[in-house]
Amino acid sequence: METVAIVGVGLIGGSLGLALQKTGFSGRIIGVSSERTIAAARELGAIHEGATLEEAAAAADLIYLAQPISGILATLDCLGALVRPGILVTDAGSTKLQIVRKATETSRVYHFLGGHPMAGKEARGVEAADADLFRDRTYILTPQRSAELDIPAVKVFLAWLGKFGATVVTLSPEEHDQTVAYTSHLPQMASTALAAVLASLPADRLSVAGPGAIDMTRLALSSFDIWRDILGTNRDVVDHALAVYIDKLTEMRHNLQTQRLDKDFEIAAEAATRLRR
Amino acid sequence: METVAIVGVGLIGGSLGLALQKTGFSGRIIGVSSERTIAAARELGAIHEGATLEEAAAAADLIYLAQPISGILATLDCLGALVRPGILVTDAGSTKLQIVRKATETSRVYHFLGGHPMAGKEARGVEAADADLFRDRTYILTPQRSAELDIPAVKVFLAWLGKFGATVVTLSPEEHDQTVAYTSHLPQMASTALAAVLASLPADRLSVAGPGAIDMTRLALSSFDIWRDILGTNRDVVDHALAVYIDKLTEMRHNLQTQRLDKDFEIAAEAATRLRR
Repeated sequence: METVAIVGVGLIGGSLGLALQKTGFSGRIIGVSSERTIAAARELGAIHEGATLEEAAAAADLIYLAQPISGILATLDCLGALVRPGILVTDAGSTKLQIVRKATETSRVYHFLGGHPMAGKEARGVEAADADLFRDRTYILTPQRSAELDIPAVKVFLAWLGKFGATVVTLSPEEHDQTVAYTSHLPQMASTALAAVLASLPADRLSVAGPGAIDMTRLALSSFDIWRDILGTNRDVVDHALAVYIDKLTEMRHNLQTQRLDKDFEIAAEAATRLRR
Repeated sequence: METVAIVGVGLIGGSLGLALQKTGFSGRIIGVSSERTIAAARELGAIHEGATLEEAAAAADLIYLAQPISGILATLDCLGALVRPGILVTDAGSTKLQIVRKATETSRVYHFLGGHPMAGKEARGVEAADADLFRDRTYILTPQRSAELDIPAVKVFLAWLGKFGATVVTLSPEEHDQTVAYTSHLPQMASTALAAVLASLPADRLSVAGPGAIDMTRLALSSFDIWRDILGTNRDVVDHALAVYIDKLTEMRHNLQTQRLDKDFEIAAEAATRLRR
């Protein structure tokens, strides 16, 4: 691996550039992003140079797509015509099925491996990039067949993830989207709905809210800019997760009346404890 | 105010004893609790001595009820016969309407003023007591008529709350229970329901959960021991808050399908921001 092209040099893309260099990558790192971002990313040392997608794709033996999901989908539409045959294209999008499908449909020129680093941060943009962003975090890969992991270019990429200190977990694209619908998208919707309900309280009442309400509305601070693509590309699975959540709340409403909530609290506390292991 | 009786010397009761002494109270502080707790509370300096409820009530010119709600209700059943006329009885229960009603129904011998310090901590018990627990925290008082706040014994108590550094907010008992149903009890139910839904995921899937799921399930770690009384004494209001939450989630489910969630996210982010002021 001599030349890496990072398409979308934000928090994740910038962190990839920094992580590669910190762990010994001595090749060239090309960024594809807006002029302003390229300047900031060069300043921070996350990339060596900026280029157009055409230039970067023609030079790279690894292409890392770290744009928003809709940007990744748009890039995949034209990438097949631009890349050298046999290279690895991977991505960092928060949903996987539509991206993997698009990659499969649009090209057989390159190997595509879907990825999702579970390595968020409150701050966004290349300014928040961090060479250790992936360290001790889960990095999900979504091969469609496990044999994909034996492709030489993939093995090289896996070795770099290992050097970053990431813990690789493999799931099918469907399993991935199903899982994050519950562990990420549903918590977001639950928090947004709760904050939207609290929005209707008189202003002076909000002031008595304690740390519980603060915790439960932190995700609600998220901008819809990020969530539009995520929810839009995982709509049916999130819809189902919401239905399951509403059913549970309805059941608990019933148990509240009959004073039999102890079992719900017990099961919930057990799961919350397991989540923290 | 020369003698204070603290009934239930746990986190809140113990902190009251420590806060009084830290801010210059030179009178006697009597604790009413289990033998084990009295020993621990004396060791920590939260109280001077232990006594039975009868002894403590006969000696005190302020009685502070800091038991679980059901304990407070039981104590109020017999307190009228035990106290000196005209003293102040106040409490720290997490719901107020049933407690204030019980106090009004059972005695006209003492003044009763409902209270609710918004000063929780993860840890419980007198071992976690803290002289600064009330500092910079909201302390809700629930007089039934505002004239109650002019009663001399109440004014003395208010002055101590001021010395503790607490911010006093007054609400009617109904307003209090309505408010905490949304700002405290609903967040708890939302967290418990979410964790109960996550409980049904395969174990290895939970491991990919990020910080969002962790935040949203912290409250779900709470023991039902605390919540049984709270939810049991605020059932109808919490039921209504749950219905409002379920309606909002149902509406968001619809907006997910029609791709019009932007408004929900905007309103929610605004409320979450206001909560943090």
